[in-house]
Amino acid sequence: MKPSAIRELLKVANRPGMVSFAGGLPAAELFPIAEIEEVTKQVLREHGRRALQYGETEGLAALRDWVAGKFSTATVKLRRENILITTGAQQGLDLLGRVLLDAGDKVVVESPTYLAALGSWRPNGVEFLAAPTDQDGMRLETLEPLLARKPVFVYAQPNFQNPSGTTLSAERRPKLVEMIRAHDIALVEDNPYGELWFEEEPLPSLFELDARTGRGANGGLDSNVVYLGTFSKILAPAFRVGWTIAEEALIDKMALAKQAADLQSSTFNQYIALEMARRGLDISKLRTVYRERRDAMLGALEKHFPAGVTWTRPKGGLFLWVTLPERINTMELLPRAVENNVTFVPGEDFHAEHNGKNTMRLNFSNAGVDDIYAGIERLGSVFKTALAQ
Amino acid sequence: MKPSAIRELLKVANRPGMVSFAGGLPAAELFPIAEIEEVTKQVLREHGRRALQYGETEGLAALRDWVAGKFSTATVKLRRENILITTGAQQGLDLLGRVLLDAGDKVVVESPTYLAALGSWRPNGVEFLAAPTDQDGMRLETLEPLLARKPVFVYAQPNFQNPSGTTLSAERRPKLVEMIRAHDIALVEDNPYGELWFEEEPLPSLFELDARTGRGANGGLDSNVVYLGTFSKILAPAFRVGWTIAEEALIDKMALAKQAADLQSSTFNQYIALEMARRGLDISKLRTVYRERRDAMLGALEKHFPAGVTWTRPKGGLFLWVTLPERINTMELLPRAVENNVTFVPGEDFHAEHNGKNTMRLNFSNAGVDDIYAGIERLGSVFKTALAQ
Repeated sequence: MKPSAIRELLKVANRPGMVSFAGGLPAAELFPIAEIEEVTKQVLREHGRRALQYGETEGLAALRDWVAGKFSTATVKLRRENILITTGAQQGLDLLGRVLLDAGDKVVVESPTYLAALGSWRPNGVEFLAAPTDQDGMRLETLEPLLARKPVFVYAQPNFQNPSGTTLSAERRPKLVEMIRAHDIALVEDNPYGELWFEEEPLPSLFELDARTGRGANGGLDSNVVYLGTFSKILAPAFRVGWTIAEEALIDKMALAKQAADLQSSTFNQYIALEMARRGLDISKLRTVYRERRDAMLGALEKHFPAGVTWTRPKGGLFLWVTLPERINTMELLPRAVENNVTFVPGEDFHAEHNGKNTMRLNFSNAGVDDIYAGIERLGSVFKTALAQ
Repeated sequence: MKPSAIRELLKVANRPGMVSFAGGLPAAELFPIAEIEEVTKQVLREHGRRALQYGETEGLAALRDWVAGKFSTATVKLRRENILITTGAQQGLDLLGRVLLDAGDKVVVESPTYLAALGSWRPNGVEFLAAPTDQDGMRLETLEPLLARKPVFVYAQPNFQNPSGTTLSAERRPKLVEMIRAHDIALVEDNPYGELWFEEEPLPSLFELDARTGRGANGGLDSNVVYLGTFSKILAPAFRVGWTIAEEALIDKMALAKQAADLQSSTFNQYIALEMARRGLDISKLRTVYRERRDAMLGALEKHFPAGVTWTRPKGGLFLWVTLPERINTMELLPRAVENNVTFVPGEDFHAEHNGKNTMRLNFSNAGVDDIYAGIERLGSVFKTALAQ
């Protein structure tokens, strides 16, 4: 393992005057601090002894029921047994690796893909098969030959993907589900950003398109799709409360692996997240502010980035993705950007095959509009200098 | 993996009228709920945005500094870089397994040992070497030939061990440290219960006996002992805040593994635990109540357990350990105990080699004195029936 670029970057990003597009942080000024204080007090007064005690490895029953209710549809009736509460969605990725992957196994990932998924599964000795993407997500014609190589699962972030910001199109979703069904391969649908849509409500999830209940073991869930969600981007990351939805047999295996990993996620934080969710999270405010910041960034990119540089136009989430001419290595640009008080994450680490050296990820959720303009202008002049050489 | 006995037991332990000696739960009625409410409010008002945001994988700097300060001595000056905050001490065990153990590696464990340590390392394909113990902890003459087999590390709980309740004697501690130094083998000292002493203050830790600073890399820590601690038993388990103390190079490797595992432990809970610790945790109250419960259990055992049954007399912690005649299988007794509204954990799962079928663990921290008398009387009659057969 080598230290990831993001980790090292976060350490310089606190310097005064620095504009950071590097992290993946939500806007801290939007955290509902007063409401969390009120809810915490309520939780301690109503459930103090239970909220501070050890609980079941699978998670707080009432929270599992809440997740089951939220993700049930006309065709999918979820039960508590289909839900595992995890220490952030990241732990869901990790536990899936532990229970499903052995050395030599293959996993299909998007190219680019979420780098901490690669980091989680790489130590298992897995072979990654990179599926190319375009502005509509995974390119399905390139996926077919990868599925023929019998991967254990396909990993996808269909909504406002980290790092690219792109969304899997409505047309491709049912086709992708059909393909994984036809090959009887699992698909891990990681959806941390889906609720942060700026324009239109999210497309149906792959889980929703695939899952049925009553046809699985004991009349339960039948689904090739494993769904990961989290409170990190819609409430606050610090609680470390996420969830995995899957067939009961897989949830049971993951719970055993979780017991070895950390016994359980914080009971206290599960109570708080549940009560906040019951009262209703104000996601519309997040959507409004993040949309403004995305628009500011897109406007600044148009104005300050030189010809030959292209970028994605995300319809939600936290990130957009920049591609420079092939000859530019963004890792080499980074020190110059830091000198100019602006940071980003070079794209290479988001690629299982270490290509994409001319790409980078920009985060727009954690900087105010003025900082976005200033930071993009600085980055634009770094690019211009590099392109002139 | 098979479901552990404890997990299944905890599910019946909530039945009304049941006296559970099965769990490892602290006494919930002693949680400082009002003070936690006050501290939470303070944390949200003083550090709200930071306390709810993502933080560094290694943990909150101020909490790492607090741990470093608490465990520094005249000969050991710890730095922040020697501390990793973990999601409970359990995660410390798990991360050590990830970074240190490969298939076929050997690990020395006490016999009996903490079952979730076995559960955490077994999936790595590790071979366990079981070191016999007596009332003074690990028997060092049996350890020497095991060390000659070049284990990666020795795992020990020197204080009020889970499950046996025994403590490694003052005489054996420096000898054990000398042995692992001589073989240049690491030792993982897991100390969740050390502060819960009932009679005399704890003996020097193995870490304290072994570690020196100024002799390691960059003038830092030189220690064959890796130390694990936690707030779970001295504050509340639900926060899931523990720590690992080790040489900086090992902490760095564990932090990378932690990033893949869950990104970081709850920032919010780290702030709360730190502020509670700064104000001073009232451990003396825990010591008083748990000592009363231990005494109640020891008295009831004398009165109700038949001849041929023996038990340990712990000087602290949460557990004591019962040994029945060889012909009795405690796993087979369990359903009869549950019928009689009392539970325990059969001893077999605490043994790497699946021996100890005639042993069991009893928890005394989580039942009131009256329940302890009633439960031990019930268990005594289950034993008498079994011994008469």
